[in-house]
This record gives sequence, C-alpha cells and structure tokens, in this order.
Amino acid sequence: MRAHRGVRDHVVMLVGGVGGAKLAVGLADLLPPEALTIIVNTGDDFEHLGLHISPDLDTVMYSLAGLANPVTGWGVADDTFRAMDMVKRCNGPGWFQLGDLDLGTNLMRTMMLRKGLTLTQVTQHLCACLGVRHPLLPMCNDMVQTWLDTDQGTLAFQEYFVRERWQPVVKQVRFVGADKAQLSPEVAAALEGATLILFGPSNPFLSIDPILAVTGIYERILTSSAVRIAVSPIVGGRAIKGPAAKLMAELGLDVSPRGIAEHYRELLDGLVLDVVDQDWCGEIEQLGIQPVALHTLMNTLSDKVRLAEATLAWAEEILP
Amino acid sequence: MRAHRGVRDHVVMLVGGVGGAKLAVGLADLLPPEALTIIVNTGDDFEHLGLHISPDLDTVMYSLAGLANPVTGWGVADDTFRAMDMVKRCNGPGWFQLGDLDLGTNLMRTMMLRKGLTLTQVTQHLCACLGVRHPLLPMCNDMVQTWLDTDQGTLAFQEYFVRERWQPVVKQVRFVGADKAQLSPEVAAALEGATLILFGPSNPFLSIDPILAVTGIYERILTSSAVRIAVSPIVGGRAIKGPAAKLMAELGLDVSPRGIAEHYRELLDGLVLDVVDQDWCGEIEQLGIQPVALHTLMNTLSDKVRLAEATLAWAEEILP
Repeated sequence: MRAHRGVRDHVVMLVGGVGGAKLAVGLADLLPPEALTIIVNTGDDFEHLGLHISPDLDTVMYSLAGLANPVTGWGVADDTFRAMDMVKRCNGPGWFQLGDLDLGTNLMRTMMLRKGLTLTQVTQHLCACLGVRHPLLPMCNDMVQTWLDTDQGTLAFQEYFVRERWQPVVKQVRFVGADKAQLSPEVAAALEGATLILFGPSNPFLSIDPILAVTGIYERILTSSAVRIAVSPIVGGRAIKGPAAKLMAELGLDVSPRGIAEHYRELLDGLVLDVVDQDWCGEIEQLGIQPVALHTLMNTLSDKVRLAEATLAWAEEILP
Repeated sequence: MRAHRGVRDHVVMLVGGVGGAKLAVGLADLLPPEALTIIVNTGDDFEHLGLHISPDLDTVMYSLAGLANPVTGWGVADDTFRAMDMVKRCNGPGWFQLGDLDLGTNLMRTMMLRKGLTLTQVTQHLCACLGVRHPLLPMCNDMVQTWLDTDQGTLAFQEYFVRERWQPVVKQVRFVGADKAQLSPEVAAALEGATLILFGPSNPFLSIDPILAVTGIYERILTSSAVRIAVSPIVGGRAIKGPAAKLMAELGLDVSPRGIAEHYRELLDGLVLDVVDQDWCGEIEQLGIQPVALHTLMNTLSDKVRLAEATLAWAEEILP
C-alpha cells in the first residue's frame, strides 16, 4: 500500500443536505480552511414567499456554524415560527416551513442577490458572518432547477420533496437550466486544485447529479488527477434519510452500494460502504472501483470526525 | 343649529399612522363597515430587505385588528425580533425594525404585489384575514414617495423619520410620483359617496399632504358636498407624537390650531381643537372655519370612542 500525503492538501467535497453536511462537519474538524472546499447542490433552490431559498446551502452552512437543528435536519436549532404563523393566518403558503432566524438568512440572501451579487459571493458573506471558515460554494451561480417527472405529473423539487413528502413514483429527474449554467470560477479553481474529490453520502439523483449536470463539472472530475471517492448513502438496503432508496428502486438501480457504484461508474476510484454491507465489496471491485467498509453512521460529532479521518486515511492508500 | 343625520351615512377618514389610527378605532367602534372608509397615507411606503413596507397601512390595520403594539405605536403587540437578529448578525440593515409577526404580513404583501394584485386588493385580503371589517384603502396603488429636502441633504422618508429620528431641519417636502399616481376606483367611490370627510389628527405635511397630492383627491374634497373636518394634531403648541410641531415651525407655520387651519385652508368646514387650545377658536372662525374645542387626547379605547362620537355629533351640527 502506498501512502500519498498529498491527498489531504485540497479536499473537494460534493454534497447535498443533511448526510453530506454531517461528513463536511467531520472534515472541517480535521482540515484547515485552505484544505477543504465544499461544493453544494443548489438544484433544490427555489423562490418562495418572494425569497431565494437555498435549502442545501443553508443546511451545510448552519451545520458548519454549529447552528443546525439536530432534530429536523434543516433550519436553525431552537428557531421559532412566528412569521410563518402570520403568513398562514393571512392564507399564505404554509407547506414550506421557514423559521424566524432562517428567514433572516433568506432575507439577506435575497436582498444581496437582487443587488447583483452572485450566489457564491452571498454565501461567502453569510458564512463569514456566521463564523464558517471553510469555503462553501454553490455548484453554480445560475438557477438550475430539479424537476421530477412522476406518476402524478411533473413536480418541482420542493413540491415533490416537501409538499408531497416524496411519495409520487419518479420516472425521470431533470435539471432544468443546467446546460446553460456557467461553471463558476471558484468551483473551477477548487476542482483544478483538488487532491481528493469526495462525493458525500447524499442522494445521488437529487443532490449529486445536479452538481454533475452543471456544464464542465462532470468532465473536470472525470479527467482530474485527484483521488475520487464516494461515500454510499445506502446502508443495509436503505437510505439513512430521505428518498434515495425509493428513487433508486423506481429508476431501476440496485438499492445497494453496487447501485451507487454503477450510478457514478467512471467517476470513481473508490467507494466507502458501511460495515453492514461489506459483502458487497467483491462486486464493487469487479466494477473496477476499490471498496472499503467503514462505520458510516454519523450521530455524534466524534462519529463524523472518525468517518472523515478513516476516509482520508483510506484515500491516501488507494491513490491509483 | 341644524341636525343632519346623513353625516354618519358614510364617513371617509384620511389618516397617517398612530394618531389617526386611534381615532379610526373610535369611529370603527361606532359605525358599521359600510359607513366608514379609511384612506391611509402610503407616502411612507418603501422597499426594505426586499419587502414592500407600508408602515401607516399596517399601523391602522393592526390597530383595527386589536393587534397593535400600544407601547411603540408601530408593529404587533408582543412581537419578537428573531429574523432581525439574524439580519443584523449578517451585517444587514438593522435601523428599521420589523418584528417576526410583522415580517409575515410584509412577506405576504410583497408576494401578492409581485403576483400583480394592487395594494388595495392586498390590503383588503390582509384585513379580511386579520378580522378588520371596515374598509382600509391605501391612498393609491402607485408608488408615491415622500422625500424631504433638509439641511443634511435630501432624505427618503424613513431615512429622515426612523434613521435620523427626524432631527434634520426640513426645508421642503416632496411627494415623488404623486402627479403620476392614478386615483384608485375605490378611493374615488369613497369620496364620491362621502357625507363626512375627516382629516385625522395626523401630521399634515407627512401623513395628510401625500394623500392630497394624489391626482384628483384634493379636487374631489374641495368640491365635495360632505362636511369636511380636521382634528388638530397640535395640542398646547406641541404634537402628541412625532415631528408635526417641529416641521410646522421649520416650514414657517404657526405651531397652533391656526397653523393647521391655514394649512388646510379651503378644504375645511370645521376644525376640532383641544380644550387646552380653546382660546384659538376666534382666530379659526376668522379664517371662515368653524371651530370646536374637545378633549382630543386618546389613551384608552373609551377616549377614542368619546372623541369619535363628539366629532360626529358636532359634524351633524355644522353642516354648511
């Protein structure tokens, strides 16, 4: 086994919401700000109550700021919902909950975007104010919207995810605007300098694919000299959280680490799967991807740091 | 003295914020919804944090809904300021306070305006949801902005009023956009059917003049067959609240009921002044305006109802 110290020099992580945010917290605990860049899905972004809502950016930002709500997975801990109470009293849409503190964040984001700042610049500002030291980058500055063709018609992401509680059967996922979205200079620079590219334990279809759909990102990862590793969000045939398993089944993939490996295919050098799934290691290897079985459940901060450290250490070993 | 029962048939009130709102509450207690229309200044409206804020509309609406904050005079009673805390933490503008419940109202207003509803329609909707039964009309549906030329340069209304706490010396007040603002059908209909037009005890320059500046309103009041009465906001040489007295002095008017009478001149049949100012009655009469001295301070609900009743009763006597 070869040790390659350089792997830790610049880790670039691709993440969606809760699962990815947990691993990001672990990595941020181990790596200095200049050695970790987190690229976040914004395919879930939408306009609601006149505000630009970026659910995944905020989940990761609040997680890194130590403000995240540990119970819901979204929003700010101990937030109140007074503005939303008034919105509902005025017959406004109540299906998407925004806490009062969270609303402050979204008011700021929306106002700064209207002033002409990019989403990258706005995110940088908000992170600085909340004490987040590691760079958090939206996957792009353009609006890309995840749409789902389902047995109940075409739904925008939040309609599917929040309003319909991901119950409709999905036939196809589309990222409207991705082909016209420009690669941001910040994402380009991060990928350019990456020594390790890590696909977080996020939903491949709804969290990672939108990132890969942005013009230029897939190609840059494909041709990168970095070690490229995914952490499986599927454990024991189930998703830790959310619709990943249901979607994989509906779209004809094995609900297993092999399904994950097949989905990312040529982009991966290695796959971290859970110890309960270690029997899958042989099949992963046959796909030309190196597997490792680790404890991937992250409840406490030390779980997050331990998985991050184990993943980094393993990445140092598998440099192709 | 002649009694004219018709005066109570359709009272149209012109008001700004706190003072006018108090008398509106008194009138609303006495008159059924079809007999009272309240036309509210929107010259203070501005865009803040990306929201369309209508301070006077909200003050009157919350007052009539029984939700107003009795201490501050603006906003909702017992409101919290969590969203604003986050805005400030993110280096956003903190000089204009918006409570969380209040924010809900403003999110709804802004969203509905963006959908293409008029401010009149939005106000009607919000009032219905908050249980306000008497029609509240913005002075127009177009954006009219009160600007003040001061010794510290030209200031937008809220900059002058809230940020600078009305300390700059005012040289001139302008209502930008008023000449292009269309008379709304609702305001036109209310004035057309008015049997009593009441100028609330509001700031003549900053609350009533913007309403009178909207194309068509001044002329309609001037030629109306309704009894036209103002309630003086100046008591004992002072304004009950806010900069009315300071402004009158700066703009060269007597800080007295006579100054008020001179300001409205030809629009008035009568002026309600406070009992402490009854010595001014003779001078008012010389201006061709009938005076009456009443207790105009309104602290309790019964103060408000009593002044409203006394004003209505007197209006029935002075029909020209």
